[in-house]
Amino acid sequence: MTRLRLSLDLDYLVTSPHADFVFNIHAARTARQRLLHEQLAVSPSPVTRIDTEPVSHNRLLRVHAAAGPLHVSYTSTVDLIHHMAAPSSLAEVPVSQLPTAVLQYIYPSRYCPSDRLMKLALREFGAMAPGHARVQAVRDWVHGRITFQNNASDSSTSALDTLLSTVGVCRDFAHLMITLCRALSIPARFATGIDYGADPALGPTDFHAYVEVYLGGRWYLFDPSGTAIPMGFVRLGTGRDAADVAFATIFGGVISQPPRITIEALADDAGRLVTPWHCPQALSTDDGPEARSDARPAA
Amino acid sequence: MTRLRLSLDLDYLVTSPHADFVFNIHAARTARQRLLHEQLAVSPSPVTRIDTEPVSHNRLLRVHAAAGPLHVSYTSTVDLIHHMAAPSSLAEVPVSQLPTAVLQYIYPSRYCPSDRLMKLALREFGAMAPGHARVQAVRDWVHGRITFQNNASDSSTSALDTLLSTVGVCRDFAHLMITLCRALSIPARFATGIDYGADPALGPTDFHAYVEVYLGGRWYLFDPSGTAIPMGFVRLGTGRDAADVAFATIFGGVISQPPRITIEALADDAGRLVTPWHCPQALSTDDGPEARSDARPAA
Amino acid sequence: MTRLRLSLDLDYLVTSPHADFVFNIHAARTARQRLLHEQLAVSPSPVTRIDTEPVSHNRLLRVHAAAGPLHVSYTSTVDLIHHMAAPSSLAEVPVSQLPTAVLQYIYPSRYCPSDRLMKLALREFGAMAPGHARVQAVRDWVHGRITFQNNASDSSTSALDTLLSTVGVCRDFAHLMITLCRALSIPARFATGIDYGADPALGPTDFHAYVEVYLGGRWYLFDPSGTAIPMGFVRLGTGRDAADVAFATIFGGVISQPPRITIEALADDAGRLVTPWHCPQALSTDDGPEARSDARPAA
Amino acid sequence: MTRLRLSLDLDYLVTSPHADFVFNIHAARTARQRLLHEQLAVSPSPVTRIDTEPVSHNRLLRVHAAAGPLHVSYTSTVDLIHHMAAPSSLAEVPVSQLPTAVLQYIYPSRYCPSDRLMKLALREFGAMAPGHARVQAVRDWVHGRITFQNNASDSSTSALDTLLSTVGVCRDFAHLMITLCRALSIPARFATGIDYGADPALGPTDFHAYVEVYLGGRWYLFDPSGTAIPMGFVRLGTGRDAADVAFATIFGGVISQPPRITIEALADDAGRLVTPWHCPQALSTDDGPEARSDARPAA
Repeated sequence: MTRLRLSLDLDYLVTSPHADFVFNIHAARTARQRLLHEQLAVSPSPVTRIDTEPVSHNRLLRVHAAAGPLHVSYTSTVDLIHHMAAPSSLAEVPVSQLPTAVLQYIYPSRYCPSDRLMKLALREFGAMAPGHARVQAVRDWVHGRITFQNNASDSSTSALDTLLSTVGVCRDFAHLMITLCRALSIPARFATGIDYGADPALGPTDFHAYVEVYLGGRWYLFDPSGTAIPMGFVRLGTGRDAADVAFATIFGGVISQPPRITIEALADDAGRLVTPWHCPQALSTDDGPEARSDARPAA
Repeated sequence: MTRLRLSLDLDYLVTSPHADFVFNIHAARTARQRLLHEQLAVSPSPVTRIDTEPVSHNRLLRVHAAAGPLHVSYTSTVDLIHHMAAPSSLAEVPVSQLPTAVLQYIYPSRYCPSDRLMKLALREFGAMAPGHARVQAVRDWVHGRITFQNNASDSSTSALDTLLSTVGVCRDFAHLMITLCRALSIPARFATGIDYGADPALGPTDFHAYVEVYLGGRWYLFDPSGTAIPMGFVRLGTGRDAADVAFATIFGGVISQPPRITIEALADDAGRLVTPWHCPQALSTDDGPEARSDARPAA
Repeated sequence: MTRLRLSLDLDYLVTSPHADFVFNIHAARTARQRLLHEQLAVSPSPVTRIDTEPVSHNRLLRVHAAAGPLHVSYTSTVDLIHHMAAPSSLAEVPVSQLPTAVLQYIYPSRYCPSDRLMKLALREFGAMAPGHARVQAVRDWVHGRITFQNNASDSSTSALDTLLSTVGVCRDFAHLMITLCRALSIPARFATGIDYGADPALGPTDFHAYVEVYLGGRWYLFDPSGTAIPMGFVRLGTGRDAADVAFATIFGGVISQPPRITIEALADDAGRLVTPWHCPQALSTDDGPEARSDARPAA
Repeated sequence: MTRLRLSLDLDYLVTSPHADFVFNIHAARTARQRLLHEQLAVSPSPVTRIDTEPVSHNRLLRVHAAAGPLHVSYTSTVDLIHHMAAPSSLAEVPVSQLPTAVLQYIYPSRYCPSDRLMKLALREFGAMAPGHARVQAVRDWVHGRITFQNNASDSSTSALDTLLSTVGVCRDFAHLMITLCRALSIPARFATGIDYGADPALGPTDFHAYVEVYLGGRWYLFDPSGTAIPMGFVRLGTGRDAADVAFATIFGGVISQPPRITIEALADDAGRLVTPWHCPQALSTDDGPEARSDARPAA
């Protein structure tokens, strides 16, 4: 078990009479990602509302703010009780056995046009045996082909652009890995968290984007950018791609400051400190099939 | 109330050892779209499974078929008890008041990149008063600009392509209308049904794509292609765009025949026949806010 | 007649062992753009070469430079003896009457995909009488729709992107106007010069991009960005679009400084100073049909 | 020497009052492609005109036709006196040594966006020694990656699309090879001819697209589609890509019939018949540096 404390401070200046914000900055609650403590402060005190999306369990904070400064502060302490598995034990799930709620993650999406990379995916990975090793090969291929470069992409950059430009930030690595997995009919989704363990040379602690792949009935973590330590990822949101899980979606005239973020490992109640490390086991913070009603196998 | 009977016959030849199909051909069940009778036959008898997606209520038929012919036959009888409203009574819902489950329908999606048409949408419709009349103006603008043309588009055609080429099929009309609505922060979604009332000169009865727009707390029907009669639309699926609600998604080697489809109005139990007509009222087959737990207004 | 003196100072640091530069910074020589004086200095003294492209008459300076700093300084004094015409006298030239060398300017090119804007061009301008007034209407439409914004575009931005984003720099205005003209079968080409008369608030004097349209047998100047004074444009290069006439194309590792540019009106030999002004006449610095052997009308 | 006779018959129906055609169906005249006999018939007798483009030497037939049928018939007998070279003797020409007229062929163009494939080209071919063998490796890579498929592309298909879809016709193979060469700063251009020696199973004799690459001071033939025999290619036109050298560009309402084309080898005056064969020598029909005034080496 790993105990982590994260804090986010977001500052905005609303320049129109009102602005609406949809934040996805709350840690998701799952059977394996337990919230011990959580505190939210929004000032000045505008109308707010917190909802949980029914399928993804993403928690959305909605703020309707008047002109002037807006400050959002969020802290939480989270216990990650990872499900761990030997990679060699994890099989791909045939399409016919996929839970219906998982199906959408083998379809193309805006930034992940997997229908256009089928030939490439088959040529590079089609001859490999299905399973975790093949997914790891996709992850390593993306990691080896793409070079991390700040500001390399914008809101119109798809996985195809990244494949051709060969540069990107974590979100672009994630989109390309997801696209290749889906082109092989392997469910893959986009996840957001904090870049625990990132090299300070890349900049201050920031939001992170990584990948979850559905293997053996659970969603396992992969970090194709290789810039952080998966064992320290606290999941904020999951979706088909970045279009689904922006940490802030804004309607109105707003000037944004860079977020200030911290994340640190804490000792647990028994005083034991488990600092995340690059563990060779496959990791999942998913509820798992035992907790999901939608995971019924095909009749 | 309108009673309709629809029948679908789909024929395939599976050329690989196995193939998987995900069909979205069942009529959705809502408080206002009631199924009196329904029959499905799949032959030869492969492994099948029917699931309902938790949020959209789309019903998915999954078939795992062996090599050889596959025949799918579906018939149902449906009562449509439309919610009707005077168009002038229908207001747009401010972003801050939108139910969380509706939020995704103001975001860009694969075929509806609304972030790229904001300027155009504001220039054409930004000065109009919010409400049903503005949405109708968007619908009429699309209907007037785009010309129906069979085979005008393929699976890569986005609303931007349609805007520039000015030709399309019903799906393209729908994508462009949805994109413009979202660019104005009006929730809009893609819906599939059967083209009740279509001119036989356009071809045999076929699947249809149209638009539902969220106004005054409900989803109302719009048909930007103008090729059919909205009162006769039996909803099969809804989603962000065509990427979400293909009537058939196929994995494996398969040769497809054109679908054979019929739809007709029936007399109700009292012997009264209501044939769908171009009604000036706004129509909804949605459950409506009274039935949805997610529609809680912002605190 | 207008006499102008321009000076360009370009500074680079070559970081690879060698680098090659292709500059298009020399004023073009035409019957109506006469060079009184011209001076080029390149230091340290690398291998250089100046060629004139056979059709466009663009003059290309090629430099093969070793690692280290490179300084290029160019000054020239130019007399512009504009051909002036009453706009109402200028007719469009039917395709069948276009000189063969002009034909390429009605075809699509990389940044000007006119085949994709035919419907739009016909809808907006198809009903207008052919002639200068229609071209002016295209120019005004572009000027009215697009807002000048520094850094709004990059090397991948086509006229379609500009049409949708509604922002751009002079190059983007030019691409969109060219694209619409070609969609109407009116020859239009991309021209580069210096932004004589630009508002200092837009930044220091810089390279400029504008449009030349073929009307009545000559190429006439149009400035869709409206940021400078056409009578003061000294033509450096012309081509189908920006892909043809970069002021510097660089092969190798090079760090660039912003160019330092001046342009000013001088008194002529008789002591008369004609400062460029927003003249209502149509202006051309082209050789004109009297000087071109390729302008033979169709038999 | 190879003597070839080709014939083209083109049939159109003009449905608008008039239509303009620009044909590029005449064999180019070069020092190594000599025309013994040539005949053109256009009926009914409309206004026609034949021009030679100054740089490319492409010969353009322009026809201004009235409503009704139009028939164009062209036959010619051509002697190809190929310049032949041992591939191993052919060096790439450094950018600093390229003739100015050749420079445009290392720049991106509409269908050949070489700036977007630089990373891929460097990764695949950057470590190879410059020269003919590297160009042959590019040709073989394209030939191996792309599968010939009729109707696989349309007028919007760029080399990037072909790279991703992995299917195409001869024009698409040519665009991708050109793009990769330019990304390596190797001049490459698009050439059109007749598909001498094509497998009849691919369809009737048709126009062909292939590639010319500038090596050792000349343009050498490459056929990345591998569907025909380069020694039998009679050059019609060359340009930056297909946008420059359509065999017919049409303005107006016109219905086209498929062209009817023949090409055959003839015995020369001495009665000797040289049938084109897959010769291992590098072949050029270019005038060569001895005939070009623009080929002056850099000072």
